Amino acid sequence: MSGDYSISAETQPARRKERVSYDRDAVHAVLDEALVCHVGFVVDGKPVVLPQLYARVDEQLYLHGSSGARALHAARRGGLPVCVTVTLLDGLVLARSAFNHSINYRSVVIHGRAEQVTDQAAKQAALASLVDAVVPGRSAEVRGPSRKELMATTVLRLPLEHVSLKVRTGPPTDDDSDLQLPYWAGVLPLPASTPAKPQPAPNLSPAIPVPDHVTHWSRPT
Amino acid sequence: MSGDYSISAETQPARRKERVSYDRDAVHAVLDEALVCHVGFVVDGKPVVLPQLYARVDEQLYLHGSSGARALHAARRGGLPVCVTVTLLDGLVLARSAFNHSINYRSVVIHGRAEQVTDQAAKQAALASLVDAVVPGRSAEVRGPSRKELMATTVLRLPLEHVSLKVRTGPPTDDDSDLQLPYWAGVLPLPASTPAKPQPAPNLSPAIPVPDHVTHWSRPT
Repeated sequence: MSGDYSISAETQPARRKERVSYDRDAVHAVLDEALVCHVGFVVDGKPVVLPQLYARVDEQLYLHGSSGARALHAARRGGLPVCVTVTLLDGLVLARSAFNHSINYRSVVIHGRAEQVTDQAAKQAALASLVDAVVPGRSAEVRGPSRKELMATTVLRLPLEHVSLKVRTGPPTDDDSDLQLPYWAGVLPLPASTPAKPQPAPNLSPAIPVPDHVTHWSRPT
Repeated sequence: MSGDYSISAETQPARRKERVSYDRDAVHAVLDEALVCHVGFVVDGKPVVLPQLYARVDEQLYLHGSSGARALHAARRGGLPVCVTVTLLDGLVLARSAFNHSINYRSVVIHGRAEQVTDQAAKQAALASLVDAVVPGRSAEVRGPSRKELMATTVLRLPLEHVSLKVRTGPPTDDDSDLQLPYWAGVLPLPASTPAKPQPAPNLSPAIPVPDHVTHWSRPT
């Protein structure tokens, strides 16, 4: 599917409309490049925000957690209202004025109701996609989940429906009256992190080489 | 101040107690190394999570935003209940089993009520600290905020009281019965991003050199 997400009450921009997009391909690109999302939900009327791994498969986002986790209990009763936010920081934007300082970033915000995946085959597929979202190709080279492990894990599915993307790129925007000030202005780009050398587990047999999915690990950009 | 934060209902661990800490110095180190936080609040009973810059000054966290932003209106009426989460991703943890895959990370979660900073001198100091939190030393080499810019900006103060830190480090933890499986296991470390070459603004006079606070920019680690 391509094209735009529909605009809804939650994703209607209040300000800086020029930075907001609903383009599916652009949203997918951010979700596929980042590794960690921040999941917000409400407990006793108060907000809670936790970092989580996730996987996007087509127009679904999968999250998982221990079946013992408090937040996930709510998802069993008709879905858990969540806001999932994924942010990539691209650079620091230094203007002549303090006020016009900014950052270059791409941030996806997803509103919706996360529902539990109960079908066992769907759950197993989602868990494989959660492994592969972090290390593509990995799920084929591990021991898959046992029945007990499947029971111990809750998987949530959040449809990509109420979705928006906010992006800032480019140089600082200074006031015309500031352009002659003697201050440096520009962007300090922050490229994505490059992995260091893989560290084999201390109990790993030296006969097992580092696999390609580790040696060649990188994020789609 | 050093020592531990007090444990409260919000910061009491439900699971994985061994990963949770309340050590002030360790919390400060994470807050000072990261650049972006995710702020959660509740709007019409639903969660909203937005990325934000922030500054820590002693035992206060400062946030800022446009005075027009909807969320900030609530902060004027006795404080806005927020959850602020800051996450640093340190590495990917590959186990022999899908189930034991994990990530190495440090994540600070702060619960509390963000209140508006109305005193003008305190507001100006907080805004300078917000610039310096991203680029140390920068606030001394920019034009400071005008009266109009100060009016256009809302600054929030969140006391560091209900704070916890969750940390995972080290190699994968595999089940004993998985240790002989022929799968690679270990950690792929993801060091912090190294900045690329600074990009001067297109309208910058070539007579203005790149300042030390840009050339030597790095995060405390």
